Amino acid sequence: MEAKKPSDSRTTLTDLVLPSETNPLNNLFGGELLARMDRAASIAARRHSRRIVVTASVNHVAFNKAIPLGSVVTVEAAVSRAFKSSMEIFIDVWVEDRESGRKTKANEAIYTFVAVDETGTPVQIPQLEPVTKLEKERYAAALRRKQLSLVLAGKMKPNEATELKALFKD
Amino acid sequence: MEAKKPSDSRTTLTDLVLPSETNPLNNLFGGELLARMDRAASIAARRHSRRIVVTASVNHVAFNKAIPLGSVVTVEAAVSRAFKSSMEIFIDVWVEDRESGRKTKANEAIYTFVAVDETGTPVQIPQLEPVTKLEKERYAAALRRKQLSLVLAGKMKPNEATELKALFKD
Amino acid sequence: MEAKKPSDSRTTLTDLVLPSETNPLNNLFGGELLARMDRAASIAARRHSRRIVVTASVNHVAFNKAIPLGSVVTVEAAVSRAFKSSMEIFIDVWVEDRESGRKTKANEAIYTFVAVDETGTPVQIPQLEPVTKLEKERYAAALRRKQLSLVLAGKMKPNEATELKALFKD
Amino acid sequence: MEAKKPSDSRTTLTDLVLPSETNPLNNLFGGELLARMDRAASIAARRHSRRIVVTASVNHVAFNKAIPLGSVVTVEAAVSRAFKSSMEIFIDVWVEDRESGRKTKANEAIYTFVAVDETGTPVQIPQLEPVTKLEKERYAAALRRKQLSLVLAGKMKPNEATELKALFKD
Amino acid sequence: MEAKKPSDSRTTLTDLVLPSETNPLNNLFGGELLARMDRAASIAARRHSRRIVVTASVNHVAFNKAIPLGSVVTVEAAVSRAFKSSMEIFIDVWVEDRESGRKTKANEAIYTFVAVDETGTPVQIPQLEPVTKLEKERYAAALRRKQLSLVLAGKMKPNEATELKALFKD
Amino acid sequence: MEAKKPSDSRTTLTDLVLPSETNPLNNLFGGELLARMDRAASIAARRHSRRIVVTASVNHVAFNKAIPLGSVVTVEAAVSRAFKSSMEIFIDVWVEDRESGRKTKANEAIYTFVAVDETGTPVQIPQLEPVTKLEKERYAAALRRKQLSLVLAGKMKPNEATELKALFKD
Repeated sequence: MEAKKPSDSRTTLTDLVLPSETNPLNNLFGGELLARMDRAASIAARRHSRRIVVTASVNHVAFNKAIPLGSVVTVEAAVSRAFKSSMEIFIDVWVEDRESGRKTKANEAIYTFVAVDETGTPVQIPQLEPVTKLEKERYAAALRRKQLSLVLAGKMKPNEATELKALFKD
Repeated sequence: MEAKKPSDSRTTLTDLVLPSETNPLNNLFGGELLARMDRAASIAARRHSRRIVVTASVNHVAFNKAIPLGSVVTVEAAVSRAFKSSMEIFIDVWVEDRESGRKTKANEAIYTFVAVDETGTPVQIPQLEPVTKLEKERYAAALRRKQLSLVLAGKMKPNEATELKALFKD
Repeated sequence: MEAKKPSDSRTTLTDLVLPSETNPLNNLFGGELLARMDRAASIAARRHSRRIVVTASVNHVAFNKAIPLGSVVTVEAAVSRAFKSSMEIFIDVWVEDRESGRKTKANEAIYTFVAVDETGTPVQIPQLEPVTKLEKERYAAALRRKQLSLVLAGKMKPNEATELKALFKD
Repeated sequence: MEAKKPSDSRTTLTDLVLPSETNPLNNLFGGELLARMDRAASIAARRHSRRIVVTASVNHVAFNKAIPLGSVVTVEAAVSRAFKSSMEIFIDVWVEDRESGRKTKANEAIYTFVAVDETGTPVQIPQLEPVTKLEKERYAAALRRKQLSLVLAGKMKPNEATELKALFKD
Repeated sequence: MEAKKPSDSRTTLTDLVLPSETNPLNNLFGGELLARMDRAASIAARRHSRRIVVTASVNHVAFNKAIPLGSVVTVEAAVSRAFKSSMEIFIDVWVEDRESGRKTKANEAIYTFVAVDETGTPVQIPQLEPVTKLEKERYAAALRRKQLSLVLAGKMKPNEATELKALFKD
Repeated sequence: MEAKKPSDSRTTLTDLVLPSETNPLNNLFGGELLARMDRAASIAARRHSRRIVVTASVNHVAFNKAIPLGSVVTVEAAVSRAFKSSMEIFIDVWVEDRESGRKTKANEAIYTFVAVDETGTPVQIPQLEPVTKLEKERYAAALRRKQLSLVLAGKMKPNEATELKALFKD
């Protein structure tokens, strides 16, 4: 199985914020943004693996910036690291000002997907080969996040999480 | 007002075909595809004009190829010609096979949008400068389509439609 | 197969404009109106053919008049001409003023549907026999539109399009 | 205020049963049919009163017949009796067989709407003048239903409900 | 088959009123509330019967109180009486004030569901054993409502409806 | 400002998995579950704070178990710890088997919400007083999660995160 690049799975979903998707402050509902990110991320996971994929976890999503009604929102997803049958997907969300055309980073999020066959059993997937500086940074950080996830789920002992221990020792 | 390039307005909306969007043959409903194209085209029109934009007409949409449930569909829209306050938007629709990753052209469509101010009055917009061969062809054809549209609406006499007359003379 | 009349397929879809269907100017989204017209037209095509029908093309839709939130919108569709397995559907859209009850024409559109069997193969359909003056005019114009569509798709040479040539010769 | 006829408010909403609107037996969800009837009834109430209208009650709805996915459903609503500011709306639901074109009565329902001004205060409305035999029967029965509704709500004593007493005496 | 208590089927659906669910007065649409009540009631019917259930009728719904956009609405449904294969479900709707947290009764409704097997044939269900004073009152009244429903449908003669006759005799 | 208990904000959203909410394996879409959890969590945050609340982050969501079409899903949300103006909400998701009635834990998730005034400025909120053993455990763990979140966002130095350091030292 040949390794792939993040650009092979990069997925762009540009769409409007419609009136039915806003909260009482007239901004995009958190829940609707989570659903859009999930769809974009699942397409990226599918492009990397060429298999059926299912959401395994949402690792962290920070809503730093409100996205008002009528905005143009771009959700950009790409695989940031591949493991045996699971993939970490890094998602960047941009908002575009109608008058100036300026794009601002609104959110970022990390999802994990698993590739499965028609019976739902996990299958092996190609590895990822990061190319740009940012892709390499995200690739390295993905291992720390995976260890953290295993520790939080009680599936790895904290003192075996070598990457994390290095981070927290003084 | 400085002219813009088609790449300045190019908009990509990649999304899944969900179960709620299919017809009795389990393919994407024509109506749902029309709605997605309308949203992508309106973003392209907005990126070109930096104004509020409203749909003026749908010029021609051929549904050549059924798009099955679960497909990844990419709608790509860009301004193909700008007039005084109206813009023609050319839309290409691609479907991607999950297993091979091969992209096939599924549809193309042409929408016209008008840029307006907050009272709904048409406003002037930048001109378009096509760059690639395909962009130049679409730019030229847009004038014929505009004449055709005016003729069909009874706002231009057939024998004043110089571009069209050339096409139909033997 | 016995010929049918336009009144045999006439379909009326009267419904409200809900808040989730409006654009930033608080008018009905073009995309939502296209979807409603597609559903009404598909019912008309089904009533004429008594078969499964799929959207083949949208020939021309002009959005002449904005339709505000809360309006009562009537979409009326009927077959305007039947060919071998395809049908042209003519759609009139009316908006009704709540206070006066006055109905105004807001849009018109032309869709083409194809009747198919369960495998998606085109099947033969009954012919159409227009009755009223308006129905006869639309029936005659449908042939010109079909030739135009074939010419634009490169499936007919312009100089074979007898109906169109007549229109553009001076 | 001039009296109106049921035909002045008659509203037809013909639409498809889409995949997103079905229950585990692949039939139209009761809740979705209730919502469609509410929209058609509110348009009929508006056409009679030319005012803002709000749902006051749903008097009785029997779901006699399942409506399968892909059906063409016609909801027909008209005012059956007008009181001071409230109206009874009678709704008939028809399902159409695709192959034979035969229409079968699937349900009927009765809704009550109240006409209000912009502050939500009830306002007076025109009276109703039934014309056909069926319209006259429904008009007469509406009074019994109103009394029943008042009795059930504890706003009328059972022995003051003259129409109902007549029905239950042996 | 062992009898069940109302608490065995009690179902709570607390959710927001979203912008796409409101009428021109910015209150929850009657039709949307009917759909939510139908879903909650169908879950209660399923919890009582452990079978597939379908809506048989909506007996009476009074919309006493408008529910504004952004409200927190609680729909609470429980079986109030079980017959051979049908169940009456009593539904209470509460609205919660954001600032004070005070809950007010907004509506109540009664639905009837039938338990069926995979072919749609009615099947026998457990009986209901009311416990609290309110549950006993609703249980008793359910028989009157069932007789009324049969009388209105012409399936029972008014003078056989012993419970109703008692109500209307002076 | 008086402290509140988790039971003061506990919110239950029991609803069906509808056909429009499923993925190609006929299970509930991750994105739709995220949206339901966001709505339930926002109601819990509102009940605790009695203010407008906005999603600040999704801390971790593991999708351990697929939730099939037609399931009854219960989303239960309650505040697990309150900080100055932000609250951590702990969400448990249960799926109920129709035939046996058995409830299984399907997912859990942690969201953070911020209470704001009408201008979007954060406001102070009541503290939380955990009561049961589980509530106390979640309360304690919330501080570790907050430190982790600050470290990952680069707003706290790893060696100041006392709770985390304790976890990773050997």
